[in-house]
Amino acid sequence: MVDRVKFQLDDKDVPTTWYNLAADLPGAPLAPALSAATGAPLGRDELAALMPEPLIDQEIGTEREFEIPEPVRQIYAMWRPAPLFRARRLERALNTPARIYYKYEGVSPAGSHKPNTGIAQAFYNKEAGKTGLVTETGAGQWGSATALSAAFFGMTAKVFMVRVSFEQKPYRKSLMETYGAVCTPSPSIETAAGRAILAADPKSPGSLGIATSEALETAAGDPSLGYVLGSAANHVLAHQTVIGQEALRQMELADDYPDIVIGAAGGGSNLAGLAFPFLGAQLRGGPDVRIIAVEPASCPTLTRGRIAYDYADTGRVGPLFRMHTLGHSFVPPAMHAGGLRAHGIGPLISRTVEDKLIEPVAVAQTRCFEAGVQFARTEGILPAPESTHAIRVAIDEAVRCREEGRSQAILFGLSGHGHFDLVAYEKYFAGSLEDDVLDEAVLAAADASIPAL
Amino acid sequence: MVDRVKFQLDDKDVPTTWYNLAADLPGAPLAPALSAATGAPLGRDELAALMPEPLIDQEIGTEREFEIPEPVRQIYAMWRPAPLFRARRLERALNTPARIYYKYEGVSPAGSHKPNTGIAQAFYNKEAGKTGLVTETGAGQWGSATALSAAFFGMTAKVFMVRVSFEQKPYRKSLMETYGAVCTPSPSIETAAGRAILAADPKSPGSLGIATSEALETAAGDPSLGYVLGSAANHVLAHQTVIGQEALRQMELADDYPDIVIGAAGGGSNLAGLAFPFLGAQLRGGPDVRIIAVEPASCPTLTRGRIAYDYADTGRVGPLFRMHTLGHSFVPPAMHAGGLRAHGIGPLISRTVEDKLIEPVAVAQTRCFEAGVQFARTEGILPAPESTHAIRVAIDEAVRCREEGRSQAILFGLSGHGHFDLVAYEKYFAGSLEDDVLDEAVLAAADASIPAL
Repeated sequence: MVDRVKFQLDDKDVPTTWYNLAADLPGAPLAPALSAATGAPLGRDELAALMPEPLIDQEIGTEREFEIPEPVRQIYAMWRPAPLFRARRLERALNTPARIYYKYEGVSPAGSHKPNTGIAQAFYNKEAGKTGLVTETGAGQWGSATALSAAFFGMTAKVFMVRVSFEQKPYRKSLMETYGAVCTPSPSIETAAGRAILAADPKSPGSLGIATSEALETAAGDPSLGYVLGSAANHVLAHQTVIGQEALRQMELADDYPDIVIGAAGGGSNLAGLAFPFLGAQLRGGPDVRIIAVEPASCPTLTRGRIAYDYADTGRVGPLFRMHTLGHSFVPPAMHAGGLRAHGIGPLISRTVEDKLIEPVAVAQTRCFEAGVQFARTEGILPAPESTHAIRVAIDEAVRCREEGRSQAILFGLSGHGHFDLVAYEKYFAGSLEDDVLDEAVLAAADASIPAL
Repeated sequence: MVDRVKFQLDDKDVPTTWYNLAADLPGAPLAPALSAATGAPLGRDELAALMPEPLIDQEIGTEREFEIPEPVRQIYAMWRPAPLFRARRLERALNTPARIYYKYEGVSPAGSHKPNTGIAQAFYNKEAGKTGLVTETGAGQWGSATALSAAFFGMTAKVFMVRVSFEQKPYRKSLMETYGAVCTPSPSIETAAGRAILAADPKSPGSLGIATSEALETAAGDPSLGYVLGSAANHVLAHQTVIGQEALRQMELADDYPDIVIGAAGGGSNLAGLAFPFLGAQLRGGPDVRIIAVEPASCPTLTRGRIAYDYADTGRVGPLFRMHTLGHSFVPPAMHAGGLRAHGIGPLISRTVEDKLIEPVAVAQTRCFEAGVQFARTEGILPAPESTHAIRVAIDEAVRCREEGRSQAILFGLSGHGHFDLVAYEKYFAGSLEDDVLDEAVLAAADASIPAL
């Protein structure tokens, strides 16, 4: 082979530990989550209502590494190590001296990086005696991962899916059902939270906040069910670091090292998964790497939000986290990267942005689809709308390299495929995809929902 | 890793040649195709109207190996070698002593094995000076592969898609468009063939035979366009042998050898791709392997058809092939494994069935979906409806092994994923998927369309 394009590791190279950035954070430790009930730092007791002991350890621990249980590694090995590609065809199309790499998580059976944590959470819940999982999902990536993970451990799965997505993406529901899960549009009549919303607005399109309330209520009412969550939390971010650990070794195989690492960021687990192992290496004296978090311009949590304690859920049930937030009442405009529609972001991502270790940038949706199409036509893979955000910035950086005559190495996260998102591509080609302009009054009103502590 | 589940080769292991079973056929050489115009064996001149010189060599040649051009290998390496998996979770669910392996072609960007030949045909057409490709597609797997292949070589692509599938699977069209292709429902007003059909029946649902006539007419009318085809032809079957060549090496890595090789068969390229390298090894003195061709009960070409010269297309434009055929007028019932709705099969497959080197079996659609769901819930991958036919028989054989207390090695071809086929799974779960019972009168009428030569 003249031009090597694929850097593949073996089964035995599936990481044995998850990496915890908290161990290498410079300065003060990460600010703790606060109890919604008491306003005091969240204790193990309160966390125990939400997750099994080992996940609590991973949520609040400061060890650098958490051992991956063998049954989890065994399932990871069905598709991991995920491939790292050199985008030579895209490089040629851009006529850039930059070396572009991407780590592809769409090879997981659910089509995204989400099973990296789904499998882990299912395992620990099963070990803790739970027989079923319950969760919420927006666009459906996380719901699919939960359904898959439950199937692998012989557990039931119940997924509350935001009604507007449920109706726009019927095949996500079908995929979950094929894995044996029950997928219910939210708001539903199955919970008090759902019934209250429906009483006020029988045609409510739902929101992730509402679906979260329904999932939490369902889990609270049935001790056999474990609540699992798809992003933002420290333990979820740690689980995703298998991505970056593999990428570190694969860059070695490529005899290269990234100058720039790019990832799309909603809750932040995809970006953290790829970038934290590189950031950790830098913090321990390794090479400097410029890390870019890409968010949608219509949900600019990192670029327009402020750092404050706020609720992760609209219903103000859950704990408060110190994070970049637009305010928990913020409802982002409908857009096709449903996985990036979050008013807040994982505290660890927020902290690294605050510490200027990660650089945030916001991009408009149509420019992302433009990049996604160019990527599909050169590299062949149809990217998920979320992933096109990373592609957009990778292309922009590669063009900058061309203009500056610099040959930098750019690594971005291709978090998933877009096989269930073709309606969005269709709209893009039809010219009916719009870039929402955020109303300043809406942003101000949402900001006012951030509690004054 | 305790239980090895994935057998992965490296870039450098992408095969360097395509294997040609014709070189190892015992007895008489393969019967030649006949000209529809003269009834005489088809000469190079007539073939030259259909394909570039190197493809003619591969179509009629008897060399054992054809060298794969480096640019084709370079593109193969973007996703090849494709993984071979040990289905340990499925084995446990079946409680079988059988060792089940599957070779997964859904890792190609188009989601099936089809790009293995699409890339090759695009390359040779480009080398011959063509600037665009034209073809027909039923369910859309081949159309997607053609669109992808054209994009890789900077060529245009025009795909005539059977109208009923075009309307049932709008996302297949969107995928082709994302790759830059034009996808037109057939029959269309763009060709004389399409206009004639529409004049007789403005609501014609179309058929693969009609779409083929439209594609051939379009190619004949524009010398810049190359006609490409997705299955059945000798050169197409040869291109697919990269699958089986890799599988041979991967079974070595697994320190095992298949007793049984199973593949779904429509035109036959998927089955041939996996099985011919094993069959060739057997014919040259290697281990015996039982090869099973699985076809749908509602289109039982190998199990109910007879061996005769017949047209591959309904319009009787193309050459005649000696093959198992139900008659070129046969229109199979609507079913969800659109890639298996062919009245005839590739002559090389037909010959090996005639010689009892391959054993055909027909299975009903609902039992295939049942197997597909069991596979998805254990192995995680959602299979294409075509692939579920192979899974069904693999499971049946594994159950037989359990009943007989035998530990055989079973290898089947998982030709693609079912991400664009969830409407079929939905129908299966809703109980609205039916097994069509073929009307004997319909079979007899179709049989009567086979020309008497």
